Amino acid sequence: MANPNVLTPQAEDFPKWYQDIVAKAEMADNGPVRGTMVIRPYGYAIWERMVAEVDRRIKRAGAQNAYFPLFIPQSYLAKEAEHVEGFSPELAVVTVAGGEELAEPVVVRPTSETVIGEYMAKWIQSHRDLPLLLNQWANVVRWELRPRLFLRSSEFLWQEGHTAHATAEDAAAYARKIHLEVYNDFLTSVVAIPTFLGIKPPSERFAGATNTMTCEGMMKDGKALQMATSHELGQNFAKAFDIVFQSDGGASAHCFTTSWGSSTRMVGGLIMAHGDDNGLVVPPRLAPTQVVILPVRDGDEAVDAACASVREALDAADVRVTLDRGRGSFGRRVTDWELKGVPLRIEIGPRDLAEGIVTLVRRDTGEKIPVAVGEAAATAATLLEQIQADLLAAATALRDERTVTVTTVEEAIAASQTGFSRLPWSLVTPEVEKQLKGEALTVRCLQRADGSIPDHDLEEGLTCIIAKSY
Amino acid sequence: MANPNVLTPQAEDFPKWYQDIVAKAEMADNGPVRGTMVIRPYGYAIWERMVAEVDRRIKRAGAQNAYFPLFIPQSYLAKEAEHVEGFSPELAVVTVAGGEELAEPVVVRPTSETVIGEYMAKWIQSHRDLPLLLNQWANVVRWELRPRLFLRSSEFLWQEGHTAHATAEDAAAYARKIHLEVYNDFLTSVVAIPTFLGIKPPSERFAGATNTMTCEGMMKDGKALQMATSHELGQNFAKAFDIVFQSDGGASAHCFTTSWGSSTRMVGGLIMAHGDDNGLVVPPRLAPTQVVILPVRDGDEAVDAACASVREALDAADVRVTLDRGRGSFGRRVTDWELKGVPLRIEIGPRDLAEGIVTLVRRDTGEKIPVAVGEAAATAATLLEQIQADLLAAATALRDERTVTVTTVEEAIAASQTGFSRLPWSLVTPEVEKQLKGEALTVRCLQRADGSIPDHDLEEGLTCIIAKSY
Repeated sequence: MANPNVLTPQAEDFPKWYQDIVAKAEMADNGPVRGTMVIRPYGYAIWERMVAEVDRRIKRAGAQNAYFPLFIPQSYLAKEAEHVEGFSPELAVVTVAGGEELAEPVVVRPTSETVIGEYMAKWIQSHRDLPLLLNQWANVVRWELRPRLFLRSSEFLWQEGHTAHATAEDAAAYARKIHLEVYNDFLTSVVAIPTFLGIKPPSERFAGATNTMTCEGMMKDGKALQMATSHELGQNFAKAFDIVFQSDGGASAHCFTTSWGSSTRMVGGLIMAHGDDNGLVVPPRLAPTQVVILPVRDGDEAVDAACASVREALDAADVRVTLDRGRGSFGRRVTDWELKGVPLRIEIGPRDLAEGIVTLVRRDTGEKIPVAVGEAAATAATLLEQIQADLLAAATALRDERTVTVTTVEEAIAASQTGFSRLPWSLVTPEVEKQLKGEALTVRCLQRADGSIPDHDLEEGLTCIIAKSY
Repeated sequence: MANPNVLTPQAEDFPKWYQDIVAKAEMADNGPVRGTMVIRPYGYAIWERMVAEVDRRIKRAGAQNAYFPLFIPQSYLAKEAEHVEGFSPELAVVTVAGGEELAEPVVVRPTSETVIGEYMAKWIQSHRDLPLLLNQWANVVRWELRPRLFLRSSEFLWQEGHTAHATAEDAAAYARKIHLEVYNDFLTSVVAIPTFLGIKPPSERFAGATNTMTCEGMMKDGKALQMATSHELGQNFAKAFDIVFQSDGGASAHCFTTSWGSSTRMVGGLIMAHGDDNGLVVPPRLAPTQVVILPVRDGDEAVDAACASVREALDAADVRVTLDRGRGSFGRRVTDWELKGVPLRIEIGPRDLAEGIVTLVRRDTGEKIPVAVGEAAATAATLLEQIQADLLAAATALRDERTVTVTTVEEAIAASQTGFSRLPWSLVTPEVEKQLKGEALTVRCLQRADGSIPDHDLEEGLTCIIAKSY
């Protein structure tokens, strides 16, 4: 078993547990400049898997990748009033370059609506150029006063999609498609995090958006984490940057644009949604290593041969496998791999092997499953699917258990101390929003009664999810 | 045939041809801030393929990906004297962030030896932690006074590998392994660019390196392009950042480090090594689209059916295929796909089809090959391999034809006006280097007589390659 003293227990101090796990599972370090982050190889391997899965879904939705510059003229941001107001306090500004003071300072992109808007205006002429569906993988900078690794860093990695459409309906439909088929599908089917889908209240919209959709996940401490957002920008950026197209009939009109993003913050969500007192728990579909093979004793010929044959069988079954031998004690290696959250380990020792047996150990439940050597790979492959499903089920059960439907603001405030509350949106006046903020609570999203995403906050009969959040 | 007026002919004005092709094949645009670059979807798709191929080779060589911050404290660069001197004129500096003047300005990374050195020092304790083999994919900024898209931009995308070793021999061997098994293998077998391998003369080494290896390619105008470099850094950075390990015996010593990089510049090399007056020529292994199917007439039922069946057969053979229908005239589409350099197109028209025939057209030679519909996919797959080999052979023939072995500096200067010259390195005194620079020539690399990479510029009997360069 893992050494229980390695991490601060979750129940004792959840934020400290988070810090411990990020450090001890070798996920990330603080960078030398305040708020920046060094993503270590294990953390980056998880991010790479996230990128591959999200990128595949983005391409399937028809968007193409491109790359726009890191540096944006300061004047671009000023073109959209709400946007510049929203981002100004967080900007990093380059004033000197090539040994000289710049005539116009440039900002390090906090997001790329403005610069991409400028090029959309160049590239779009007629309705035949629409929709224009772009995405980029990039780093962005937003100066953080209270940084936390992965969750809130001054520089982070993300993808940002930017699209232009002929009509508001097309734009809304595409943003919704991305939200459901890219973000929600990825989060639930790969990261095994159930989400509450909905729109942000007007006070929490992206700076410059007419509508913001969100995926809200519940962490193990009952707080909410915004995992990805998709924005309808109306004609705000199209008007600011002159993104104009000629219709079939020859009339010209401004486009309707969208933007949508997901970031390294999802790594923080992964940690807090599934991790336990022994370390990370990585869902099999996301795990860089799905199965680790651990010889109980190194240098034993029969054990070596069994390790090799099980590894070969797992390779052949396209399972991502690591064989860990000759590196410290067996107990130490078990602790390490539990810390790193590898979904399944296979322990192979001389005594079991004499009976033709190896032991599979599930990271999520600790369950030990003895199987015949020749069946280890097939059983492992089946178990990985089972673990994937069980993790989503466990997270869903926890979320539902901690989400309380209430009818008054007072009840909402009480219930949201340890989880989420669901309240009629009609009760949330601007005064109530202020009152909630005083309790460190926010409206995470508005939903229809059936849990679907409303078109607008003015729809009748909406409920809202209230919670503490990261 | 493609419209010959689309691009400025290479023979007329090679730099103008390059500008034209970058714009008209929709590879890239100039960014709004001087020297920056917008990589458009087609250019980015080529870069993504480069990334996938290089990344696979880096991982096979044992290095792990990680991510280090964009922002580096100014003081870090100053720790290695040659390094700061080399990069200072090119730095972009952030002086204001989060609405306030920074106490210590931060530089936007021009390369990451310094910040990675700082973390290597933290992570390395004993000889068991060595070698430490890291790589990162990132953007870097070097302020450019004479920017050219892909070749020289103020911001560019690259990978930079950074490793630490116990001995100088280990470090040198690993740098050489990367140079040969990652860079040279990728450039020759995927990009189909033959290289001259060698070391840089001391005057052209990376700032802070004790040895720099290079892959030099010849462009179609006879100029050289440095495609990738690998550096031995000795103990320079280990001493500046205290990267120290304890040996088995308990003594402590500084590590030996390496760094190695390749960038979006390779896209420029691809363009100039293979392109012609009709546009890009992309080698099949690199091409985002390897085969384009063009119906000669849209809306013809038999043509549609044949297009669909050929596409299906190509998909099944894992060929990257695009079916282009209903978008402008046939002639216009041919011109477009020639511009984009897709290796093979399949023209499917009603008249040929009546005889059971479709026509394959090679982008590199223009050769038209009629084949039976049912054999189109298999023939295409074979032809793609042939085109890949032929492109490398053609580039090698051109390079060898334009590389002249000479015995005097005067002959070298004359021969290097239109290609490369090979001269005994012993003739190149500091005065000669100056004389060459006066003619806009440089020593691109030093080689052994058999073309292999020397360990040091002081080896006996070396020759050097002299050329104009990008």
